[in-house]
Amino acid sequence: MKSTYPFNPKLDLAFERVVDVPKELVWRAWTEPSLLKQWFTPAPWQTVDCEIDLRPGGLFRTVMRSPEGQEFPGSGCYLEVIANEKLVWTNALLPGYRPVTVAGVPGTRNDFQFTAMIELKSVPGGTQYTATVIHADEAGCQQHAAMGFKDGWGKALDQLVAMAKKM
Amino acid sequence: MKSTYPFNPKLDLAFERVVDVPKELVWRAWTEPSLLKQWFTPAPWQTVDCEIDLRPGGLFRTVMRSPEGQEFPGSGCYLEVIANEKLVWTNALLPGYRPVTVAGVPGTRNDFQFTAMIELKSVPGGTQYTATVIHADEAGCQQHAAMGFKDGWGKALDQLVAMAKKM
Repeated sequence: MKSTYPFNPKLDLAFERVVDVPKELVWRAWTEPSLLKQWFTPAPWQTVDCEIDLRPGGLFRTVMRSPEGQEFPGSGCYLEVIANEKLVWTNALLPGYRPVTVAGVPGTRNDFQFTAMIELKSVPGGTQYTATVIHADEAGCQQHAAMGFKDGWGKALDQLVAMAKKM
Repeated sequence: MKSTYPFNPKLDLAFERVVDVPKELVWRAWTEPSLLKQWFTPAPWQTVDCEIDLRPGGLFRTVMRSPEGQEFPGSGCYLEVIANEKLVWTNALLPGYRPVTVAGVPGTRNDFQFTAMIELKSVPGGTQYTATVIHADEAGCQQHAAMGFKDGWGKALDQLVAMAKKM
């Protein structure tokens, strides 16, 4: 594990790969909406909207669309923004660090919560890309794994790399 | 409102006062456990334990004790740490930005969640002290207000100032 994060295998998921594009392009792909929309969801899914307010406490919002046309909006809050190195956000908080809740059901949340951390490091051959997803409990972690975390993040990264090579 | 935060009166609580001690001492009172334990809970309540890992993602833990001897532990995670200026933490995340949950009840949380922000600014006569507490929903905000937020934070600040003047 190349991440600086103290990984917990029961609660966390990780994805790691060396990609042959410079970390500055990976960073742009993650932080510019017009670029993110091109790779973020494995085809035939699409990312049809994206808002990025790139600062701690700022909004990270995406809308994913299924092949059948159903839309899945999601909002989170950036926690750490270190250009070309580290990006951390969570969907347990809304912009301005406001805790998430479901309307009318105090204390509950609309989905399984996670914090995601992208770490980039220049290595021979390109960029060491590490994604760590941190869950509240084992159920959330298992649910995320069952949704195809590794496969999905891998396919999305393939798309990111293909896009970056054309830039 | 002197805070930089976009205050929402339905969801947020604020407390503001100018205190006649330098902001560097107020900062130390909030960030050194041996000092924090002396003022954090209005007497006859006590803060009997405190752990501070002063960095974004680091632990902020306190144990408050009622006059009857009941203990109330609480853990949170720092979000922003700007020395002598701004301190932000939340109890919606644990250290390492892990979302909070209740064991065995995925998606629920153990208490009303909030993010707290302390802002300090040097002004003629001392320090402008602004505390903002950001809630998930109106119920959480009202519950916190009913628990005596303003009175409690005011008495605690009186204790902080009395301590700082002896330093």
